[in-house]
Amino acid sequence: MRVAALSDFLLQRIDRGSGMPMNRQLYQVVREAILERVMPVGLQLPSSRDLARELKISRNTVTHAYDQLMAEGYLETRKGAGTFIADTVPDQIPEADEASAQDARQASSAGLSERGAQLIRHAGAYKLQWGAFMPGVPDVSAFPNKVWSRLQNKHWRRSRPELLTYGHGGGYLPLREAIAEYLRVARSVNCTADQVIVTSGIHQSIDLASRLLADVGDRAWVEDPCYWGTRNVLTSLNLKPVPIAVDAEGICPGNADLRHPPRFIHVSPSHQYPLGQVMSLSRRRMLLEYAAKHNIWVMEDDYDSEFRYASRPLASLQGMDTHDRVIYFGSFSKTLFPGLRIGFIVVPQALADSFATGLSDLYRCGQSFTQAILAEFMTEGHFASHIRRMRVLYAERLNLLLEAIERNFGGELTISGDNAGLHLVLLLPDHCDDAALCRAAQEQGIIARPLSRYYMKPSRAKKGLLLGYACVPHAQVGPAFDRLSQLIRRHIA
Amino acid sequence: MRVAALSDFLLQRIDRGSGMPMNRQLYQVVREAILERVMPVGLQLPSSRDLARELKISRNTVTHAYDQLMAEGYLETRKGAGTFIADTVPDQIPEADEASAQDARQASSAGLSERGAQLIRHAGAYKLQWGAFMPGVPDVSAFPNKVWSRLQNKHWRRSRPELLTYGHGGGYLPLREAIAEYLRVARSVNCTADQVIVTSGIHQSIDLASRLLADVGDRAWVEDPCYWGTRNVLTSLNLKPVPIAVDAEGICPGNADLRHPPRFIHVSPSHQYPLGQVMSLSRRRMLLEYAAKHNIWVMEDDYDSEFRYASRPLASLQGMDTHDRVIYFGSFSKTLFPGLRIGFIVVPQALADSFATGLSDLYRCGQSFTQAILAEFMTEGHFASHIRRMRVLYAERLNLLLEAIERNFGGELTISGDNAGLHLVLLLPDHCDDAALCRAAQEQGIIARPLSRYYMKPSRAKKGLLLGYACVPHAQVGPAFDRLSQLIRRHIA
Repeated sequence: MRVAALSDFLLQRIDRGSGMPMNRQLYQVVREAILERVMPVGLQLPSSRDLARELKISRNTVTHAYDQLMAEGYLETRKGAGTFIADTVPDQIPEADEASAQDARQASSAGLSERGAQLIRHAGAYKLQWGAFMPGVPDVSAFPNKVWSRLQNKHWRRSRPELLTYGHGGGYLPLREAIAEYLRVARSVNCTADQVIVTSGIHQSIDLASRLLADVGDRAWVEDPCYWGTRNVLTSLNLKPVPIAVDAEGICPGNADLRHPPRFIHVSPSHQYPLGQVMSLSRRRMLLEYAAKHNIWVMEDDYDSEFRYASRPLASLQGMDTHDRVIYFGSFSKTLFPGLRIGFIVVPQALADSFATGLSDLYRCGQSFTQAILAEFMTEGHFASHIRRMRVLYAERLNLLLEAIERNFGGELTISGDNAGLHLVLLLPDHCDDAALCRAAQEQGIIARPLSRYYMKPSRAKKGLLLGYACVPHAQVGPAFDRLSQLIRRHIA
Repeated sequence: MRVAALSDFLLQRIDRGSGMPMNRQLYQVVREAILERVMPVGLQLPSSRDLARELKISRNTVTHAYDQLMAEGYLETRKGAGTFIADTVPDQIPEADEASAQDARQASSAGLSERGAQLIRHAGAYKLQWGAFMPGVPDVSAFPNKVWSRLQNKHWRRSRPELLTYGHGGGYLPLREAIAEYLRVARSVNCTADQVIVTSGIHQSIDLASRLLADVGDRAWVEDPCYWGTRNVLTSLNLKPVPIAVDAEGICPGNADLRHPPRFIHVSPSHQYPLGQVMSLSRRRMLLEYAAKHNIWVMEDDYDSEFRYASRPLASLQGMDTHDRVIYFGSFSKTLFPGLRIGFIVVPQALADSFATGLSDLYRCGQSFTQAILAEFMTEGHFASHIRRMRVLYAERLNLLLEAIERNFGGELTISGDNAGLHLVLLLPDHCDDAALCRAAQEQGIIARPLSRYYMKPSRAKKGLLLGYACVPHAQVGPAFDRLSQLIRRHIA
């Protein structure tokens, strides 16, 4: 290629005012020309000296661009002859078998996999995660920032490399010890530190336990209604969630259900999500006996039982289990703040090593630094005192919400789950479209989640609103509900 | 039950020196007695006043314990008659169908699922994650702690609740913008911020992409050898990794492979893991044309291409792709520190919304606070300068290691992948048992990973050692290798 022709071509495409270094621009323009086959294979390029003179730039700039193109294989030098466009024409591809090519095309015409498309169709996470009446979110603004910052700075000053590299096993040992101690005292969980596996939250806990304990196609009982996240994780692992009805005593499998033991059972016995009831003692014992008899795992999701306002929190199912069938899940998302992303699993001793190995191998974990801060936060007593403080705060907000409901509706509507947790459920008449009501509320800046969306079996779905009060400042609870109540009136009319 | 008999029974089981509050002990002892049926259903308990007198404790203590047992359903009061052990005998369980009961028993006799057992069998994560010669770990002790602490404290003082609650969508927007900007300049990736999905690292990136884009049983090409983590994630999602040979130009599918297009292809084109070669331009173009023709996704794992010592890092495969088939993965584990747990995916525009939704719904993410700090760390220029500093440091350590190898073995052994990344591969003769050599090294406190373990096809497996030099202080590189070389001598003799 004559140097004048090339430099004309380059000058048309180079933008001296773009701010991008000239050697980078030169590299990109030539590279594109090669990929678009504007500059054909075998074409000889002018020497860097000639091209630099023609473009009125330094020779170094051209050399840099040529070197990079050479390193990436776009150009090649032939000894004594100069610089040429290299032969990078793709290798010949043989034809695919028509059948498998067809399969591949069909599968990916939609772009997503079947399980991917299903996940997106049933997406449950909500765009807003803060404000009246977002359920499941604690008051993160009341978190003791200063204490946490102090501990964090202390650990940064010490700066131990083991805390910054990848983690291995079930998590940072002092944190596992602190969690075990807390669970023994507060939740009557029977465990030692090596049975505690530190995860990034309940989702990862369910994911790990499901992969390690269940195979594709296995059935898993879930409460109906239940948390959308549980369903998502299970179905995206190709397990089959079987929706089991709940009554006032918790999960309530019928005889037809009981005749077909599942691979595992997922329950929230301390505070059914989202309805809020506590699983009765006879139901608990039935579940444990059934699990022991058929070698079924019971996953106990204990996501927010720290906040029980009337009585002391109930003992865990795990603490009653004498056959090592219970896998216990907990989280710091509700007690501290969701963005911390730390949760935990307590597994029977026989599974402890497998879970620790599975955790490292599946997720390549390594939040050790944050885990170390949390361990100290717990052993210094800040965790327990924060929970106590929040329990008082949330109880006050709950009362304000109950007052507002009473003021607007008297005894007209039923309330469920108002003695524990971070939200309550306001039940609505069956003819009411709770999803439409929530959309209307959203337009007014009020968050409410429709109860009916938490059910898998449409015939079972009750109508209602999940109303979270924990993250709503005292002064806003009443006014926000008053505004919401006008919409409710309109929708139940 | 006569009060004296009960108090005798209780006194035997209560331990006044245990430090546990008396009301808690009382609660536990009675609860156990009920569960073990030592105290039968219907038994009347003495009044709290009588029992307190007999046990010589305050009446309040007894009342507390009774109340808790009542709340949990172990005791019940009958009007005017007193307190009784409640009927909590489990509901009758009907017999399970013999066939399904059998299935359940068999499946869980081993405890783990099939995929779980397979994962544990092939576990690849190593117990030690720091020291000579741990591959894949950067020098976290050189991380600019003070800068990071300053930014962290600033954010804690501001304390915006949105950063502490759950995240939603593809991550914290300013970080996605900073990553997009960085990738455009440094890696020639074509993208805008909304195509960037922030994850907790490469494992989560592969997991999300695999669930959204592939179904159970789908085949996925992986390089042979490849990173153990990729294989683990794919097989635990019940995909079928198909091991494809690599040559000096990168992944090298044969005609038989090409006739059966997979669902996706996972490659490490900038720096093949673990061998270290760069994928040639013609191979890149072949791969992209093949992918476009058959609607195959190409997952580009660009885990450590920032550290290239001889020339400028190579442009990404994503930047060459004109058919939107490439899903690009990157991570801050190698550039900053693994414990940060932040990585990212760049997806074609058409998939951006699905990936953002999938992320929230599958993992309930929310590292926004850390993401905000990282965004500022990048925009203030600390990220770029840290990489520059580390590139110099690692190049020096690489040279020290090459010198030590030269000193001990001259040209006797071949070295692979010594121009980029955080490790090199020292190839060994075929008869050498590299796994045994690594175990022997470990006994002397030296970490080396056996190359043969990274292959899926045993017939293909080369022998060698992965030696990471990035996290080894200059002064230790030579001495540690000298010790290792004695073991190598013994094993190749």
